[in-house]
Amino acid sequence: MSEFEFIKHLKARLTHSAHTILGVGDDAAVVDCPAGEQLVVTTDTLNVGVHFLQETAPEDLGWKALAVNLSDLAAMGAQPRWCTLAISVDHANAHWFERFLEGLLALAHQHGVDLIGGDMTQGRLSVTITAIGTVPDGQAIRRDGAQSGDDLWVTGCLGEAAGALAYSRVGQLNLHARAADPSDEKLRQRLIRPIPRIAAGIGLRNLASAAIDVSDGLLADLRHICQASQVGAHVVFAALPHVAEDPRLGGWQAMADLALTGGDDYELCFTAPVTARAAIDAAMVTSATPAARIGTIESGSALRVTLQTGEYALPSVLGYEHFR
Amino acid sequence: MSEFEFIKHLKARLTHSAHTILGVGDDAAVVDCPAGEQLVVTTDTLNVGVHFLQETAPEDLGWKALAVNLSDLAAMGAQPRWCTLAISVDHANAHWFERFLEGLLALAHQHGVDLIGGDMTQGRLSVTITAIGTVPDGQAIRRDGAQSGDDLWVTGCLGEAAGALAYSRVGQLNLHARAADPSDEKLRQRLIRPIPRIAAGIGLRNLASAAIDVSDGLLADLRHICQASQVGAHVVFAALPHVAEDPRLGGWQAMADLALTGGDDYELCFTAPVTARAAIDAAMVTSATPAARIGTIESGSALRVTLQTGEYALPSVLGYEHFR
Repeated sequence: MSEFEFIKHLKARLTHSAHTILGVGDDAAVVDCPAGEQLVVTTDTLNVGVHFLQETAPEDLGWKALAVNLSDLAAMGAQPRWCTLAISVDHANAHWFERFLEGLLALAHQHGVDLIGGDMTQGRLSVTITAIGTVPDGQAIRRDGAQSGDDLWVTGCLGEAAGALAYSRVGQLNLHARAADPSDEKLRQRLIRPIPRIAAGIGLRNLASAAIDVSDGLLADLRHICQASQVGAHVVFAALPHVAEDPRLGGWQAMADLALTGGDDYELCFTAPVTARAAIDAAMVTSATPAARIGTIESGSALRVTLQTGEYALPSVLGYEHFR
Repeated sequence: MSEFEFIKHLKARLTHSAHTILGVGDDAAVVDCPAGEQLVVTTDTLNVGVHFLQETAPEDLGWKALAVNLSDLAAMGAQPRWCTLAISVDHANAHWFERFLEGLLALAHQHGVDLIGGDMTQGRLSVTITAIGTVPDGQAIRRDGAQSGDDLWVTGCLGEAAGALAYSRVGQLNLHARAADPSDEKLRQRLIRPIPRIAAGIGLRNLASAAIDVSDGLLADLRHICQASQVGAHVVFAALPHVAEDPRLGGWQAMADLALTGGDDYELCFTAPVTARAAIDAAMVTSATPAARIGTIESGSALRVTLQTGEYALPSVLGYEHFR
């Protein structure tokens, strides 16, 4: 497959919304920003051996490469609309690439995202997607709006993706094949096919005072909100929906570590005034998203977690970091 | 340097136009598309060992990674406005990254481009930039508008970047140090610091019937115009400004190959009706861009080049292709 065959493959598979004037195949794409909306832009890379294993199924890689970007848009309250794909591969394999596209486009179609540009180059396997969404003027949810006294919320259940990775590391789960046990398979899906919380993010416009997606681990990401908003936070662990305790991974402490510092959850952590509770509950029902109040924003800059047994001792590195 | 220090580095260096509402440092950036304009989006990757050598100065890499993207915007007639940067590095080196940013931002500032998002990951050295520009509604210059009878034009001089690479391969030019000979240094600069033809592209709105940037080689890129427009083209080599003949590289034929099939020129190849000649000459003067009429668009689908000595024998591969 040459690079031009790659573009042909892409073009044959793509459909476009009315806002896409010119898609893949020219020097650049041309799109219309809907009137009264602002653009929301994010970019994320997945590298083989760092973010995923060589054995990862191409469908799963395609899905996840887009999902991690859409999750960033979700945290801003944006409606995803377009994406570009830059992919480096050692060898051009049309079958592999078809499968990769199948995974990527399955998620893209769910959210009405048009793939409008691509570059395929020779190199170590790496996928960079830039995702572009829109939000009504002034309604993007930022990290810097949390106020002392706000509730702290999180969607979904934390630590499951990190749990899947932990199980695989102790030889209890093959990440590259369907697990026989349904609860193991659920964890595996959480890692390989994260679901960006798009509908929840849109529902939180004008309600949340700050939001972030939980990609590096709850505490690491919550600290970004605290630093940007110049506040502290108190998490009550008992209120946090988390991965089930499992003797295969060690005791209760290991499970708390997964939920608080494990990465790859792609849930939303957000803050909102106490007065918004009923509206948020309603928005979460509308978007079919489980959400829980897990603590409070405080003055100061401290981040603390109360366990059933006392205070959680924060590790020096709160979550996943490159080059740490 | 951790990934968060990387973001701090970025933030400290960046300035923003009025259209950038929120830049680097949140889950995503927020920008305003100017009223009456459409967005033009492109993405390109440079990989070590494929697009550039390990010894490349970081300033030059930063410049070129942005330049190749801005060149795509130029070919659409777009005004560049924003870009995102995804960079993979083996080791995080703050000094290297500062120098890389210096090169990238030097070009960005020349064109008022805001760097609005970034991702730094561990991996083989690779840079992916997504550039976003704008164009007045409906004025993007596409590849598919060339008509039989149109003039064929090209900006600048072709084959110089490929000439620099050819000289380096025969040991006549060190690409990583200033050359003593001024004409050699000029060729070296053409390769390491390409200048995207932004002003020319903007000047060609409503004049050019089709345009493409010459990145893979004139014939390869011209063929894209021909295929998209369903036309043929005739190039008169004597009219084409090209790299000087040099005995170090072989004879006249080698020089023609460089000009016709060498890559990395980042000039614009465009077509326009005969009636637009005077307006195009004026637009090229206004944008201080040398441009030459090098042939004619013809009916059919054939691409042919007339040399002083007869017909140029087209190679089976017209220009640079990955995975060929």
